[in-house]
Amino acid sequence: MIIGVVGLGTVGFGTVDILVKEKARLEKEIGEEVKVKYGCSLEDVDLPEGIIYTRDFNDIINDEEVDVVVELIGGVTIAKKIILEALKKGKHVVTANKALLAHDGEELFKCATENNVNLYYEAAVGGGIPVVVPAKESLIANNIYKIEGILNGTTNFILTLMEKENLDFNEALTIADDQGFVEADASLDLDGYDAAHKIKLLAMNAFHIFFDFDKIQLEGIRNVTKKDMDYAKKLGYRIKLIAQAKKLEKGYGLDVAPTLVPINDIVGNVMEAYNVVEITSDYLENVLFYGKGAGRYVTASAVVSDIIKCHDDKKWTYHYEHTDEIYPITYSSYYIRTNKPIDVDYDQYLTLGNDHIYITRAYEKDELLNKLGNQEYHLFKVR
Amino acid sequence: MIIGVVGLGTVGFGTVDILVKEKARLEKEIGEEVKVKYGCSLEDVDLPEGIIYTRDFNDIINDEEVDVVVELIGGVTIAKKIILEALKKGKHVVTANKALLAHDGEELFKCATENNVNLYYEAAVGGGIPVVVPAKESLIANNIYKIEGILNGTTNFILTLMEKENLDFNEALTIADDQGFVEADASLDLDGYDAAHKIKLLAMNAFHIFFDFDKIQLEGIRNVTKKDMDYAKKLGYRIKLIAQAKKLEKGYGLDVAPTLVPINDIVGNVMEAYNVVEITSDYLENVLFYGKGAGRYVTASAVVSDIIKCHDDKKWTYHYEHTDEIYPITYSSYYIRTNKPIDVDYDQYLTLGNDHIYITRAYEKDELLNKLGNQEYHLFKVR
Repeated sequence: MIIGVVGLGTVGFGTVDILVKEKARLEKEIGEEVKVKYGCSLEDVDLPEGIIYTRDFNDIINDEEVDVVVELIGGVTIAKKIILEALKKGKHVVTANKALLAHDGEELFKCATENNVNLYYEAAVGGGIPVVVPAKESLIANNIYKIEGILNGTTNFILTLMEKENLDFNEALTIADDQGFVEADASLDLDGYDAAHKIKLLAMNAFHIFFDFDKIQLEGIRNVTKKDMDYAKKLGYRIKLIAQAKKLEKGYGLDVAPTLVPINDIVGNVMEAYNVVEITSDYLENVLFYGKGAGRYVTASAVVSDIIKCHDDKKWTYHYEHTDEIYPITYSSYYIRTNKPIDVDYDQYLTLGNDHIYITRAYEKDELLNKLGNQEYHLFKVR
Repeated sequence: MIIGVVGLGTVGFGTVDILVKEKARLEKEIGEEVKVKYGCSLEDVDLPEGIIYTRDFNDIINDEEVDVVVELIGGVTIAKKIILEALKKGKHVVTANKALLAHDGEELFKCATENNVNLYYEAAVGGGIPVVVPAKESLIANNIYKIEGILNGTTNFILTLMEKENLDFNEALTIADDQGFVEADASLDLDGYDAAHKIKLLAMNAFHIFFDFDKIQLEGIRNVTKKDMDYAKKLGYRIKLIAQAKKLEKGYGLDVAPTLVPINDIVGNVMEAYNVVEITSDYLENVLFYGKGAGRYVTASAVVSDIIKCHDDKKWTYHYEHTDEIYPITYSSYYIRTNKPIDVDYDQYLTLGNDHIYITRAYEKDELLNKLGNQEYHLFKVR
């Protein structure tokens, strides 16, 4: 197995490092040579001996000896070109590029199927946590009908800081940023785009569907206040940024939203930058995968497992259907904070000062918004 | 893919049911026929149309058309004979038989390797939770150094009852028994044998070693009192039956013991008959798998994934080393309850009535036992 790694940043470098350090053990496992032939990057990088450094990814794609191209440069333009060209040359591709796959997955997966090669992306969701492959292979007996998770470590880290250090959103954001937890484009994390990319990949994988990314309704954590967190806690909940995908009677529900999760629930105990994915299906019922969602070696661990997986003769095919029937999941129990009492059926009610806080029975969101009319409110879903 | 299922009890029947109901979808997934040709059982069973019922497993083993033999009769005598003969005839074997693999795995896995066929056992650990295959394949980049888990649903169900319903062990046991949670041989669950079988399988899989089952030190939950549970809770812990396997400087540590787990820890929030496995490794750090540890369809889900896995050309090989260096894990923080103060370094201390309760710093167990001398004590490990 001859490998070319394109992109030698955090994860790319970690991947090369693991492949070199664990070479002997990996080769014993699969009974075949495991060799990184190329490392490609626009910036000069010190590569371990024997690996060819190049600035031109075409050197890799045009080398007939290369079996697997690993795309770790990120972004959606050059990365796409590299992946498509590699697939067309009959090379397997491994990537961690969730944004690209969430936007252009349909084209890319179809290209892989047409060329009878693999396009694996375990590292794109949940960092190193095994979830894409287990959902596809270990759960193959099952019809999956719901996926829920905390898929963005940065926002979970900020929410944890707000709770533990008694901070408001902006104070916590500053600390998270100082500690390097926030990406250059903060909106990706804070407004839910990153979590939405990931839930889209999980939904494609589980439901065998393609759909437009823009169909996913998303809301980030900017509106989560310390006050609402405190009320939620009094009522037995934590606020988490939950990404959800489920089969509806007609079509599929997908959204990303700050959501109250019971503190007694395992998902409610996922703190710091950890991720969790819960999958519900007909035979296995609910199963949950938990671990670190990011980090050089954490993510590289998943990249390496995908690379080694390319050794198998098996090919994943992507004869998925394209659907437009993607809807937000609006039928739910809700947390409402208002400054006047409202007429709703509720499971819990709390009043403090001028605040009235309800955990409602399950409602269609529109019905609640009607009841609220023009008055001020803070509203979150409840899991 | 032509399949023969030996054993048509709870899991066997569930397996046949899934394979029949999901036939079209599974065939589409792997591009090959998925056909249950035989069901074998000593008792007459109503099988779906087209499946041959037999009382003689030789009918299956001697049928050249059969690719995969599924052993679900349990026990360690006939089951072993069936598996060995099937492997020698070049058939893949899928089993959920943890007791057999824990005792005779070395012989069985070597036989599979010699005959170049697969012997898969995902359903033997954690019911349907994917953990054997992910530990082997998704974590292939990693050197695993620790595995911990709640692997026995029955004891976790009893411990949950004791806490929630304020019961003593024997009262909770009676209820669990009434609800069908306790096996005919109650000792398998209550004294830790079942958890030990499972941690042995996980250790073999992760560390690539064979060793004698009797080397595992085990302690069940019979000595867990409601009183100690209450004290533990005051100190921020729950008592769980924890199975552990870790690499030591020399050799491997393995044991099963009631252990205090922090209530804030995810493992401490695993209640009822749920199972959890946490794997710690060098690159991926810690990853955790959680779900239902038993049930007809839950377990059959894992059996079916193993059967479908036999479609791949890949073979797992078992060139593991046999080791005698298996030790209990004795260096730990401990919970001690005594009726006189003792001289230990501790993180927490509580005294109520005549009871003195310590959460000690990490000690070698022998050192603590020396300090305790002849006095009465209750002692559990702390995670």
